[in-house]
Amino acid sequence: MTDPAAARFRNAPAIRAPRGLERTALHWTTEAPLRMLMNNLDAEVAERPGELVVYGGIGRAARDWASYERIVETLRRLREDQTLLVQSGKPVGVFETHADAPRVLIANSNLVPRWATWEHFSELDRRGLMMYGQMTAGSWIYIGSQGIVQGTYETFAEAGRQHFGGDLGGRWILTGGLGGMGGAQPLAGVFAGASVLAVECQPSSIEKRLETKYLDHRADDLDTALGMIRAACAERRAISVGLLGNAAEVFPELVRRGVVPDIVTDQTSAHDPANGYLPAGWTLAEWTAKRETDPAAVAAAARRSMVAHVQAMLDFQALGAKVLDYGNNIRQMAKEEGLADAFGFPGFVPAYIRPLFCRGIGPFRWAALSGDPEDIYRTDAKVRELIPEDAHLHRWLDMARARISFQGLPARICWVGLGQRDRLGLAFNEMVARGEIGPIVIGRDHLDSGSVASPNRETEAMRDGSDAVSDWPLLNALLNTASGATWVSLHHGGGVGMGFSQHAGMVIVCDGTADAARRLKRVLWNDPATGVMRHADAGYDIAIDCAREHGLDLPMLR
Amino acid sequence: MTDPAAARFRNAPAIRAPRGLERTALHWTTEAPLRMLMNNLDAEVAERPGELVVYGGIGRAARDWASYERIVETLRRLREDQTLLVQSGKPVGVFETHADAPRVLIANSNLVPRWATWEHFSELDRRGLMMYGQMTAGSWIYIGSQGIVQGTYETFAEAGRQHFGGDLGGRWILTGGLGGMGGAQPLAGVFAGASVLAVECQPSSIEKRLETKYLDHRADDLDTALGMIRAACAERRAISVGLLGNAAEVFPELVRRGVVPDIVTDQTSAHDPANGYLPAGWTLAEWTAKRETDPAAVAAAARRSMVAHVQAMLDFQALGAKVLDYGNNIRQMAKEEGLADAFGFPGFVPAYIRPLFCRGIGPFRWAALSGDPEDIYRTDAKVRELIPEDAHLHRWLDMARARISFQGLPARICWVGLGQRDRLGLAFNEMVARGEIGPIVIGRDHLDSGSVASPNRETEAMRDGSDAVSDWPLLNALLNTASGATWVSLHHGGGVGMGFSQHAGMVIVCDGTADAARRLKRVLWNDPATGVMRHADAGYDIAIDCAREHGLDLPMLR
Ligand SMILES: NC(=O)c1ccc[n+]([C@@H]2O[C@H](COP(=O)([O-])OP(=O)(O)OC[C@H]3O[C@@H](n4cnc5c(N)ncnc54)[C@H](O)[C@@H]3O)[C@@H](O)[C@H]2O)c1
Ligand SMILES: NC(=O)c1ccc[n+]([C@@H]2O[C@H](COP(=O)([O-])OP(=O)(O)OC[C@H]3O[C@@H](n4cnc5c(N)ncnc54)[C@H](O)[C@@H]3O)[C@@H](O)[C@H]2O)c1
Repeated sequence: MTDPAAARFRNAPAIRAPRGLERTALHWTTEAPLRMLMNNLDAEVAERPGELVVYGGIGRAARDWASYERIVETLRRLREDQTLLVQSGKPVGVFETHADAPRVLIANSNLVPRWATWEHFSELDRRGLMMYGQMTAGSWIYIGSQGIVQGTYETFAEAGRQHFGGDLGGRWILTGGLGGMGGAQPLAGVFAGASVLAVECQPSSIEKRLETKYLDHRADDLDTALGMIRAACAERRAISVGLLGNAAEVFPELVRRGVVPDIVTDQTSAHDPANGYLPAGWTLAEWTAKRETDPAAVAAAARRSMVAHVQAMLDFQALGAKVLDYGNNIRQMAKEEGLADAFGFPGFVPAYIRPLFCRGIGPFRWAALSGDPEDIYRTDAKVRELIPEDAHLHRWLDMARARISFQGLPARICWVGLGQRDRLGLAFNEMVARGEIGPIVIGRDHLDSGSVASPNRETEAMRDGSDAVSDWPLLNALLNTASGATWVSLHHGGGVGMGFSQHAGMVIVCDGTADAARRLKRVLWNDPATGVMRHADAGYDIAIDCAREHGLDLPMLR
Repeated sequence: MTDPAAARFRNAPAIRAPRGLERTALHWTTEAPLRMLMNNLDAEVAERPGELVVYGGIGRAARDWASYERIVETLRRLREDQTLLVQSGKPVGVFETHADAPRVLIANSNLVPRWATWEHFSELDRRGLMMYGQMTAGSWIYIGSQGIVQGTYETFAEAGRQHFGGDLGGRWILTGGLGGMGGAQPLAGVFAGASVLAVECQPSSIEKRLETKYLDHRADDLDTALGMIRAACAERRAISVGLLGNAAEVFPELVRRGVVPDIVTDQTSAHDPANGYLPAGWTLAEWTAKRETDPAAVAAAARRSMVAHVQAMLDFQALGAKVLDYGNNIRQMAKEEGLADAFGFPGFVPAYIRPLFCRGIGPFRWAALSGDPEDIYRTDAKVRELIPEDAHLHRWLDMARARISFQGLPARICWVGLGQRDRLGLAFNEMVARGEIGPIVIGRDHLDSGSVASPNRETEAMRDGSDAVSDWPLLNALLNTASGATWVSLHHGGGVGMGFSQHAGMVIVCDGTADAARRLKRVLWNDPATGVMRHADAGYDIAIDCAREHGLDLPMLR
């Protein structure tokens, strides 16, 4: 037997999806998953393409290289009345279906609940029986850092709508951490119109963000940083400042000074106290050394610091700031360390994202299969034309174009909901039909309105207590399959890890045909509609109103 | 708010599915789920129809009466380009799909793994947010006790094929328990050609089985019972004897005497030691009293007795008997009580059912929507005609007709596999087209070849260790949806309870149309083929051979 681990490494030439309008597969509905799989493993997109890792720790696009190659071969020969099944990144069967059925059906990382632990998964993974699919890694619709910038932008923007009349001009956000994901915060905050003060303990993290222009300025002491933020706010300019320091020290110091930001959050890696969080009072050198020699001591010190950190966040809240957890589990850590009130401020989904989910709004995205950036710019213009009144959306499109580079195939993310997605999809398909652009694929993150059950994140604190009910993402996947998405996936795990979530993905092709138009109309309506349905069922008024407004047929609500 | 519990009880007139060829819904594809839902709640079929409980403890067909009524109303108006979504027994949405998509998509009792416990489920259930779907209860294809008789028959018959050259004549089976499910054992054993000695401690359980003719004789002492069994075996007659006694006493006594049965199993309710298992040496009166006053003492005594019981089973095995666990978890109980070797004999699936699953063979079933028993007899004849060489199958059809009464709509179960199911489905559809019979629905249990992940039962001890991988049933459900089954369901829990399994159901209509024929061909091929694929992937030679023989397209096996 070959070693399953070895089957995951290779030094082969870099993978890059074919460009242009000539197909390498028989149809666009099979060329599309082929190019998107390859694009997920493009060195511009994937974190460790040689190991098939796309993002998020060990989120893979295929189980091993043999599986990858066989998927590619199979997609090249797949007919439009056939469907390929992929089980945890391995192509396991081809079956006769029909043209309106998906071309690929994917199930990744799913385990019977009693066995749904990292321990059991890792054992199966090691033996070559599974892979971790994350969310968009194993479902072939990851497109780089644009997603996290946009998600963070939407969170800040919704906070602005809820608390500041939709205008973050002259406001500022305090946060910690400028790492892999957290580094998107300054850019997202500025896009949303606010200034951002991000406390980061490592100079290298600050420098990296300055280089990519995700961050505007660096400051090495608090007074300088506050001076820059104050000046910008006074002039209603949005700037970002990376302050070299320790959040566990700076946050309490600001409380002592009575300096109250408008919004407070944090993206240090608090979820991993032994590795991701610098304890207060420690130097970087001490931290680095002790992580090797005494990780337990590091973790203990980090947890104690998190108590002070979260206490400062609670204090800011008491002083009038809007405070939110951004999914790094810092509340849980502080609570376990004895801070009884640690969950006194909300997670970002119940606080800001849920009202969007109630209207089926979430991380809609598309990519240009041709590889031509102009195709995306033309779709950007179409979005503006079809949704003329949404200044927020237009601002995002401007900023994204100006400041975010494409990674791999050109792509765009924008948060739109029920009634908008199908219109955009049909319009793009017409553009393809008229030859204005090449074929487009449309998909979304699994972190969406109707496609996920995740009690510590997307479905935290549901109104009716149904946080853990995963019937909903399963119905979402079944309905997208019945509606004719081009590929559909069901994953377990994802961002919050083994045991903590189940979620579904879908992607659909605009190849300019009338058949595609029929499917796009159904899928891009039904998919966000399941989110509105799920939230209406949980009793959210916004969702119930949205359902009525759009004439959804929800039998128990009539 | 209304009390969710109260919404589950009513004294309304009994439910009975409409009979005849006149529809109450717009199409047969919607009339079929309507009639089968009603049939699941028919007093002849359901255990507690007033509470919507079909079978298996609290396995329900709909969440509450309001949901039931709304499902019925919705199915009556549903068009053939629409799909109804049902979430844990509640109708939550109607969406536009297309004629080749399922008319109903169902997800029951699914919970994010970390919350997938009885405690969390019960809380949601109590609050009216969920229901327990069991396997065929919530997926509207339960048809009474014929299923368990057939499953047990197949198990015994396969044991006969493996160990006794396919001939159980002159052989005998020792078992315990003649309760709700266990009561099928004597009939199934006799059908398979063997005599059965069933030790049962309650006279009422024995009497009930004598009345329904599932059991032939009663004996009140071991010598009499053994005499009857010996005489029958000598003459190669198959008879069944219910011996009033305690299995925990009788099994060891037989070992002491050196009496070795050919096959040994057990269906006392060992999975529930506080309620389901009479400890050795106790009278029924003591047992009944102590269950009220000191359940912990009952459980402790029961567990001790199970050690003796399982030890006797191990001894029988050492003496040459074929011994199997029939899914009552008695090995686990004995092991927890200190019997190190308790798992020394296999579960029934790895021992006998898996070779069938490897060829896609499992509990295929169909029901006559017209209500006319003649429709079933005509399909019985068609099965004989199309599968002329299978004596085993013919014996089942004879016996089933002679000794099993229909419950609710006339129905038939028979275990057939890949290459047979689609032929039968197409033949039935032609019979409908020619007017020889009324419309038929075809489905199966979730306990089938490709549709379940259940590490303590259906996927126990898989060759490659993939017992807990639930990608497979999810792919099965997605593929059946893509292939055009009439309704498809995804459940968690089922027979082994919360946290222990995930499984999928499917049902498809034969209404005599060419459209139905197209779908039947795909669905009844693809569905068992996913089972062959799953077992081939796990490395079973039978499945690999079966896949080759039938030309399955399994990319990694080419
Ligand atoms: N919204 C979401 O759901 C979501 C999305 C992505 C990431 N996250 C979470 O956000 C956190 C950050 O993710 P990442 O990928 O950026 O992690 P990362 O490890 O790449 O970055 C963490 C950064 O925090 C800095 N840091 C550590 N301790 C500090 C301290 N005491 N003061 C100041 N800076 C400190 C580190 O130097 C590092 O640059 C993680 O916990 C992750 O799980 C949440
Ligand atoms: N093959 C399968 O997967 C499968 C299917 C159905 C049931 N089961 C399991 O089989 C078991 C029986 O199911 P059931 O529905 O018949 O349960 P039940 O509770 O209706 O019947 C159990 C019977 O065992 C008798 N009994 C209890 N202790 C005894 C003893 N010491 N000696 C002799 N008789 C004793 C009881 O009087 C009762 O009649 C359960 O554990 C169930 O989970 C397995």
